Amino acid sequence: MNRRMVFFMTGRIVLLEAALLLLPLLVSVIYRESCGWAVLAASAVALVVGGGLSLFSRPKTQTIYAKEGFVIVALSWLILSTVGALPFFLSREIPSYIDALFETISGFTTTGASILTDVESMSHGLLFWRSFTHWIGGMGVLVLVMALVPTGSGRSIHMMRAEVPGPIVGKLVPRVRDTAKILYLIYLVLTFIEIALLLLADMPLFDSVIHAFGTAGTGGFGIKADSIAGYTPAAQWIITVFMWLFGINFNLYYLLLIRAFRGVLSNRELWVYFGVTVAAVVLITCNTLPLYDGFGEAVRYAAFQTVSIVTTTGYATTNFDLWPELSKAVLFLLMFIGGCAGSTAGGLKVSRLVLLIKTVGRDLKRLVHPRSVGVIKLEGKRVEDTVVRSTSAYFVLYFLLVGGCFLLVSGEPFGLESNLSAVVACINNVGPGFGEVGPAGSFAAYSGFSKIVLSFAMLFGRLEIYPLLITLMPRTWMKD
Amino acid sequence: MNRRMVFFMTGRIVLLEAALLLLPLLVSVIYRESCGWAVLAASAVALVVGGGLSLFSRPKTQTIYAKEGFVIVALSWLILSTVGALPFFLSREIPSYIDALFETISGFTTTGASILTDVESMSHGLLFWRSFTHWIGGMGVLVLVMALVPTGSGRSIHMMRAEVPGPIVGKLVPRVRDTAKILYLIYLVLTFIEIALLLLADMPLFDSVIHAFGTAGTGGFGIKADSIAGYTPAAQWIITVFMWLFGINFNLYYLLLIRAFRGVLSNRELWVYFGVTVAAVVLITCNTLPLYDGFGEAVRYAAFQTVSIVTTTGYATTNFDLWPELSKAVLFLLMFIGGCAGSTAGGLKVSRLVLLIKTVGRDLKRLVHPRSVGVIKLEGKRVEDTVVRSTSAYFVLYFLLVGGCFLLVSGEPFGLESNLSAVVACINNVGPGFGEVGPAGSFAAYSGFSKIVLSFAMLFGRLEIYPLLITLMPRTWMKD
Repeated sequence: MNRRMVFFMTGRIVLLEAALLLLPLLVSVIYRESCGWAVLAASAVALVVGGGLSLFSRPKTQTIYAKEGFVIVALSWLILSTVGALPFFLSREIPSYIDALFETISGFTTTGASILTDVESMSHGLLFWRSFTHWIGGMGVLVLVMALVPTGSGRSIHMMRAEVPGPIVGKLVPRVRDTAKILYLIYLVLTFIEIALLLLADMPLFDSVIHAFGTAGTGGFGIKADSIAGYTPAAQWIITVFMWLFGINFNLYYLLLIRAFRGVLSNRELWVYFGVTVAAVVLITCNTLPLYDGFGEAVRYAAFQTVSIVTTTGYATTNFDLWPELSKAVLFLLMFIGGCAGSTAGGLKVSRLVLLIKTVGRDLKRLVHPRSVGVIKLEGKRVEDTVVRSTSAYFVLYFLLVGGCFLLVSGEPFGLESNLSAVVACINNVGPGFGEVGPAGSFAAYSGFSKIVLSFAMLFGRLEIYPLLITLMPRTWMKD
Repeated sequence: MNRRMVFFMTGRIVLLEAALLLLPLLVSVIYRESCGWAVLAASAVALVVGGGLSLFSRPKTQTIYAKEGFVIVALSWLILSTVGALPFFLSREIPSYIDALFETISGFTTTGASILTDVESMSHGLLFWRSFTHWIGGMGVLVLVMALVPTGSGRSIHMMRAEVPGPIVGKLVPRVRDTAKILYLIYLVLTFIEIALLLLADMPLFDSVIHAFGTAGTGGFGIKADSIAGYTPAAQWIITVFMWLFGINFNLYYLLLIRAFRGVLSNRELWVYFGVTVAAVVLITCNTLPLYDGFGEAVRYAAFQTVSIVTTTGYATTNFDLWPELSKAVLFLLMFIGGCAGSTAGGLKVSRLVLLIKTVGRDLKRLVHPRSVGVIKLEGKRVEDTVVRSTSAYFVLYFLLVGGCFLLVSGEPFGLESNLSAVVACINNVGPGFGEVGPAGSFAAYSGFSKIVLSFAMLFGRLEIYPLLITLMPRTWMKD
């Protein structure tokens, strides 16, 4: 493995974090909050660590392969979170470092699971940083580095593959760097549009920015005890729509920009995503109708909660833990599906599920007609056999991970529903689950051990298992 | 499709059921119970249906392929259950036909999930039939037909493959019929040994036979409200050991018979099965120690419950629903694992999980070293790529089925823990779950719709999805 290149790239990313921390610093200065010192200290630490890594690991060769791509991504995310937790810890606003780390990983992975029991008492600077991690983590920090800094390496697609979710990651344009730039530009513009619309819907500026970050990254951190419930119906609908939009493959926005409308309309994943959303909204509306004042209100709650969960954002406008069993079951299953590949959403991703169902269909056909060939197509293109196989393997690995994490946290006395939904909500980067960890609860009561397990679950989920797993295997680090 | 052969074979199997029903008839005559008439009537129906199918579908050619094998198995199991439910229904001991069908399918699939709220009031004849279905379903009814009747077809391996669980089904001896005979003989002898030992442990004859049936088929139907809790510790240990023995691949017993001890000892699946069992017993013993009088009692309960669940039998000596969360989580995960391939146990099967983990490992290696070949071996033999692929597809299909069934039954007001564990317990042919369907509860409170869904879940689980799925697809029935 090209270790020098791994450390060098990781260093660059941590340096970027030092710069990104200046934004919450600015916020705390504006609000004249003392937490600014903690943010500044964290930025300094990032500068020293990142600078050190970059300076002392100047690589002899920039060549990297898939393995290096995985390790760079996993390592960066681990160090980013470790340093990113410092502002919360140093300011004593989150006195336990494990709690601060959990909150930061939950932020970067766009999970939105929180250990805070009184979010409204936090300072503006730290609330900003907390939600800003969603925005950074949503599109990916390596993609950001690629967009900003010339890496000089022709192999940066390996890093992009490791960080961008979904079974197949391609380039929009021949150069990876240009692809990264385009993606971030779309991301930025959509975020600004949402901020503007939320302002129009009577949401204060600070709140609008925070919730746009949470929506864009499909994260879910809010700043009110009742999440989005206290804002106007208009604001709730705006967030509903934007959560859904950020759950779409960003490549489609690029297609829109270059006026390739047919490509957008013929996108199978988009239609399945649409169909799943509509079906769930209809089902939940019918099921919860008796709870609300009329049809309009029921649709609003059902649509918000469905989109919030299927995009793995995790905002709430109502305590869905009190909904009837059927609605809760629908939400629980939506957590696994997640948004589209190449979006900021978590979960298994719609296209991966479509691919898996097609694989199952092909195998069924083969059982009946052993000599049938069975080519699997996705979005009109033949899917390579290696992709088909690794998608099935991913599914297996994913459920092994769910089972393993569930076993590890089941020492907690909160019952199967809470413990299982906590794992599922973390691994799919949703945030809230049911029971103890429902939208009205938090992860505060879980033990330090469970919080570490769940933090890893969030990282595994966001990075889609392989990067972190490969980094944790000792043989990866052995000399070739 | 060779429809005539399908109906002909199905007819034979139903005729066999007519004969098998004479055994509970005998029991009801011995106990002078009026339910005998209901049993006789069911036998007559089986005779007419089976005779009709056999007579009017005499096949022109006996050639069958994989497809016919699947359809014969699924169709036979459906008709067997439909007719097998008649004694309960006609005798009015189970007044609802859907309930009777649920109970019968639960019997044949060796699930052991019950809708009875007062099992001790049932007649001996029907209790015998109920448990006898476990014994019949455990080793498989087609395997029994093959053992008894010369099918004349050289392709009967297709039927055996469709009925015997596990990713790879082979023949012990060159002729399928001889293989079936050997398997049933081992099954019969082990059952008799268990009956003898239970008699020695102060269990009455009738009870011993019933529990030997329930153990041999890894079914779990009992005759007492508290399952096995009221019997002597010796009897509990005997059942523990035999449940475990019936969860082993029967091929290994054949290897023992021909003195191929090395083959037994080098069986990877057996060791993993052993390791999983021991690990779970140790974990649960430590976790539940404070609940019981001393170490010996705790081990007895832990061992019984672990083996009962991992073999998907479902007997209980204690209400494990009241155990601490960790122990319940272990049991919940054991439900998915199940016993060894080629045993009477349900679940995913140990060898399938080993195969899946190896596949994941190979894919991980390929990600890091793209040019590695990666041959997967199981029990010293190279596993064909088609088997590897279909095992992954099976896993996907299995979890889609769990999700689908969970959605369908989640209209029930019993909470996620009860509903999800009901589905998991049915699809893995375990029987009891947690909460409403825990060892002290029953499936009685579930709606008719949910009972039908769960009945299909049990059949899908026992037949390992494909046979039933292929039979339900309209294109299977179209003319070639």
